[in-house]
Amino acid sequence: MRSDLPEGSERIAEVGEFGLIDQIRGIAGESSAAAGIGDDAAVIDLGGGDAVLATVDMQVENVHFRLDQHASAELGRRVVAVSVSDIAAMGGIPRHILTSLALPPSTPAAWVEGLYRGMAAEARHWDADIVGGNLARIDGPICLDIIVIGTVPHAEVVARSGGRLGDVLAVTGTLGNAAALRLARERSLDLADLAGPEWIRRAAEVHPRVRQGRALARSRLVHAMIDISDGLAGDVGHLCRASHTGAEIDARLLPIEPEARAIAEALGLDPVTLSLSGGEDYELLIAMSGGALEKAREVTPDIALHAIGRLTAPVKGVSLIDDGVSRPLSGTAWRHF
Amino acid sequence: MRSDLPEGSERIAEVGEFGLIDQIRGIAGESSAAAGIGDDAAVIDLGGGDAVLATVDMQVENVHFRLDQHASAELGRRVVAVSVSDIAAMGGIPRHILTSLALPPSTPAAWVEGLYRGMAAEARHWDADIVGGNLARIDGPICLDIIVIGTVPHAEVVARSGGRLGDVLAVTGTLGNAAALRLARERSLDLADLAGPEWIRRAAEVHPRVRQGRALARSRLVHAMIDISDGLAGDVGHLCRASHTGAEIDARLLPIEPEARAIAEALGLDPVTLSLSGGEDYELLIAMSGGALEKAREVTPDIALHAIGRLTAPVKGVSLIDDGVSRPLSGTAWRHF
Repeated sequence: MRSDLPEGSERIAEVGEFGLIDQIRGIAGESSAAAGIGDDAAVIDLGGGDAVLATVDMQVENVHFRLDQHASAELGRRVVAVSVSDIAAMGGIPRHILTSLALPPSTPAAWVEGLYRGMAAEARHWDADIVGGNLARIDGPICLDIIVIGTVPHAEVVARSGGRLGDVLAVTGTLGNAAALRLARERSLDLADLAGPEWIRRAAEVHPRVRQGRALARSRLVHAMIDISDGLAGDVGHLCRASHTGAEIDARLLPIEPEARAIAEALGLDPVTLSLSGGEDYELLIAMSGGALEKAREVTPDIALHAIGRLTAPVKGVSLIDDGVSRPLSGTAWRHF
Repeated sequence: MRSDLPEGSERIAEVGEFGLIDQIRGIAGESSAAAGIGDDAAVIDLGGGDAVLATVDMQVENVHFRLDQHASAELGRRVVAVSVSDIAAMGGIPRHILTSLALPPSTPAAWVEGLYRGMAAEARHWDADIVGGNLARIDGPICLDIIVIGTVPHAEVVARSGGRLGDVLAVTGTLGNAAALRLARERSLDLADLAGPEWIRRAAEVHPRVRQGRALARSRLVHAMIDISDGLAGDVGHLCRASHTGAEIDARLLPIEPEARAIAEALGLDPVTLSLSGGEDYELLIAMSGGALEKAREVTPDIALHAIGRLTAPVKGVSLIDDGVSRPLSGTAWRHF
């Protein structure tokens, strides 16, 4: 406990991130439309032909990344990609980026240069500009805060809140790779017989689904969308809360690659649990009517779209069907506090 | 020195903030127009009738603020006001705000609530919306990163770079109040005979000059503008570097209030030095032709506009004329690293 803060009150570790966000939404609501609070990006009308999307994501050393796990250029690409993914989840295109960094004075200049090279490379990959930012000193861990401003036609904004009872839930790509690789490295697992270098490279990188998010939004086939950052279990929960639904996930339908499965098993972990709660997948979770699934696959030909469950009545909560048994799926998301 | 970073290279404490910014500008320039890098806010064209301004400012515990010096609501107002001031310096109006916070788990929920109440109150004061944000855990100092998105008619954007040889330099309001109060508190100076409660309240708060910045931009009278955050000496330097000029400041013309003067003297400090390098004034520094000064005063009737010097040839650098003696004015700005 910190001595310079008032004693005797509840700590945010006890309230939890989502309790805190609810509280904040209440306060912000007093002064604003608060349209975007709780979505992947805020939706702003600045009078242009398109809606403007704005998102910010702070990555903190030893919480979100460790310096011994990433070269600085790789970390630079990663922090930008993570914020770009939020724009993808709204159906938008990233346009402009601001970078706000807090760095300890002892940071090597060459490390910072590598970081900026990585951030610039990722921006260039998306044809987005780094237009400004901020540098601050910190006597503590490195904080990298990335702001992405994007655009999307007004009629094509996809929020978390549009899911409907009976909708199919689908995900792009596969789940659990990032978590499997992270855990394998943390526990010094020998990957030689479990995964090839191409899989490792892919699992280590963040691949925001901008093209797919845009195509799905343009098609008007999808009701709700969110990117999977906290882990499927948590992000299904976010989508359901926003859409006032429950959900049922079928464990057999979760797209898990053989490498992720093999690593999980080598670590003594359940691959399904890993794919549900590992986080950092940065795939899209999509709710749409069952009849739209085939058409959605046609507009995203370069990536697999897997149906994994459906939206149910809110009273049912979020549950996992595994071996014919249904169990509640909660408390397995990444907890920030 | 940190053991988890490569050894043997230059640290950012040695390169300095502005060396680092130059380096970053070079890297970002490879991928972007980089229009806004180095200005108070980035200028973005999103196709609407107005240019879009975007700024971000990170405030770090024990670097920019101390918890024992601010109630959390006061701090919330302050961090938003500091970013709003960057929009004012470009001639813009703040519209939308995102708040990105890194908080240690031990932070009391009531403290965070106070912070948000302060941020929401400041946003409301400017008729701006808090539209979203981010919460992250940190095992270290609190970081408060505030993003403000504003608008300004394309033809009325005021950059740092428009200053011209012979321009008058003017400032809104007075200088040194914030620094005087901060130092008085740090050194436990008894203010009873030096300053009244109204002055103390005013010196403790940040008053972004949005109305004045907007009026000056609309009038098209001003060539360049910047807000004084690092201290006049440093910010004159920023304006001169961007405008490719030098500057001459007349010490006798610096607007210093009797209270700031009295506090400086009680602390054994030179009031002129305090007003040049104390920082956190958040007044506007403006370059305009000498003939425009009276008209500029007419469009900002609610605040004094003091001429304090003029722009000179770049070869002359930035100098202070004091008692008929000219001396170079450098190295007195707030150093972030």
